[in-house]
Amino acid sequence: MAVKISISALFFFCLLLRSSATPRRHIRAHHPCKKMVFYFHDIIYNGKNSKNATAAIVGAPAWGNKTILATQNHFGNLVVFDDPITLDNNLHSTPVGRAQGFYIYDKKDVFTAWLGFSFVFNSTEHKGSINFAGADPLMNKTRDISVTGGTGDFFMARGVATLMTDSFEGEVYFRLRVDIKLYECW
Amino acid sequence: MAVKISISALFFFCLLLRSSATPRRHIRAHHPCKKMVFYFHDIIYNGKNSKNATAAIVGAPAWGNKTILATQNHFGNLVVFDDPITLDNNLHSTPVGRAQGFYIYDKKDVFTAWLGFSFVFNSTEHKGSINFAGADPLMNKTRDISVTGGTGDFFMARGVATLMTDSFEGEVYFRLRVDIKLYECW
Amino acid sequence: MAVKISISALFFFCLLLRSSATPRRHIRAHHPCKKMVFYFHDIIYNGKNSKNATAAIVGAPAWGNKTILATQNHFGNLVVFDDPITLDNNLHSTPVGRAQGFYIYDKKDVFTAWLGFSFVFNSTEHKGSINFAGADPLMNKTRDISVTGGTGDFFMARGVATLMTDSFEGEVYFRLRVDIKLYECW
Repeated sequence: MAVKISISALFFFCLLLRSSATPRRHIRAHHPCKKMVFYFHDIIYNGKNSKNATAAIVGAPAWGNKTILATQNHFGNLVVFDDPITLDNNLHSTPVGRAQGFYIYDKKDVFTAWLGFSFVFNSTEHKGSINFAGADPLMNKTRDISVTGGTGDFFMARGVATLMTDSFEGEVYFRLRVDIKLYECW
Repeated sequence: MAVKISISALFFFCLLLRSSATPRRHIRAHHPCKKMVFYFHDIIYNGKNSKNATAAIVGAPAWGNKTILATQNHFGNLVVFDDPITLDNNLHSTPVGRAQGFYIYDKKDVFTAWLGFSFVFNSTEHKGSINFAGADPLMNKTRDISVTGGTGDFFMARGVATLMTDSFEGEVYFRLRVDIKLYECW
Repeated sequence: MAVKISISALFFFCLLLRSSATPRRHIRAHHPCKKMVFYFHDIIYNGKNSKNATAAIVGAPAWGNKTILATQNHFGNLVVFDDPITLDNNLHSTPVGRAQGFYIYDKKDVFTAWLGFSFVFNSTEHKGSINFAGADPLMNKTRDISVTGGTGDFFMARGVATLMTDSFEGEVYFRLRVDIKLYECW
């Protein structure tokens, strides 16, 4: 049915449109625009495993040292790491990148850490880096940290990463599963 | 050429427009979408206050140690903390969360620090975390740092936090007031 | 008043709408909304250069110390810095701000670091700070880190910074060129 329309009606339509229209060249939504799952493997230097170690204690409280994690739930230990990232939970799988940065145990009465690190990729699959920061109350089954930025394939990314301790062997080895959910993709 | 147009055609146009736009489910503005004020309390370990201490020196320059903040305005001291967060300026108020992370004194000629930490909440009021990073020229009455991300109730938050030193007692206790202003709320 | 409207007029309306239908008070695009180039200069304390040093080793692995960067590509060394920022590559140019924060060497088999720092400006040109985080595989000619936030003139900024080693003199002095490209400007 063809009809004449009034100018005021047209304006009304236009206003309706304007209020809801937001042209954007990147995706931003409450459901992730990108999801990835990785594992990384941390082997702390204990004075004897120089060859295999991927991490080392480099800061300690007055009551600590650099080869044994301190008492009081390791409070005050700063650990630097360069850990292999794998697609499955096997330490011996071919790494697809490196997790590089640090964690600091920061609570006296329960294992808790603060993380600042990057995933660095340079493979055919992924090039670039993803930067993470946040609190890791590591006795919780899952805990969320922030994806604060990215470069290369992950240019300007933001999101949340869910950490799960996938394995924990004494005080030398642990493996984290990381579910990355990006909510800003450029 | 002037023509009558059908209402359905008009709707078609409108839909076309709408579908190419991306309505956004989060708020983003120059006035904060969320404002909060908290205090947190830092008691540095000095070799004698093990029970009360909420923070410890874990890194020091060549001329420093782990129980006394170094000369030259503490340049080079890395301090790890797990500080109670309160709603008012009373150290003995019931904590509503924990401020966890680190600061590094990073200037020789005036007190200045660099902060990387999180507010971690797990109460009926708030669940989740807010992540902070930035320079803290702590002799200034107010100074701004960045809110780089958040999780849980503060999912994907970004903003600015204004720090004010609310109290400073010798070199063992200080209290910061933190005015959080989020400009990205999801 | 009811009128016939032409299709071309309708198109004109629609174009008008599209081009103006961006209710956002900040710029966000794939080409930078702001570009800046700076240099900063890092002189590490080596036990003898107390006066000139702008940085100091404050964390070291079990096999390291605080006046000499450790073997194994300095793996585990945490360095705190307060470096002058200049507009050109001359250490003696008038600083326009300070680069403040830390880096951690985090790889055993090649020089690589993780950076957390801020550019702090307080000049007639710029007031405010820019916060950076990310991995720095420093043997690469260029490497990208994230701008995770900013304050003052750089309120809520996000972007990418490209680092280039502009000079490297032994293990005491280096100069970085930083090309800052902001993609979110408020």
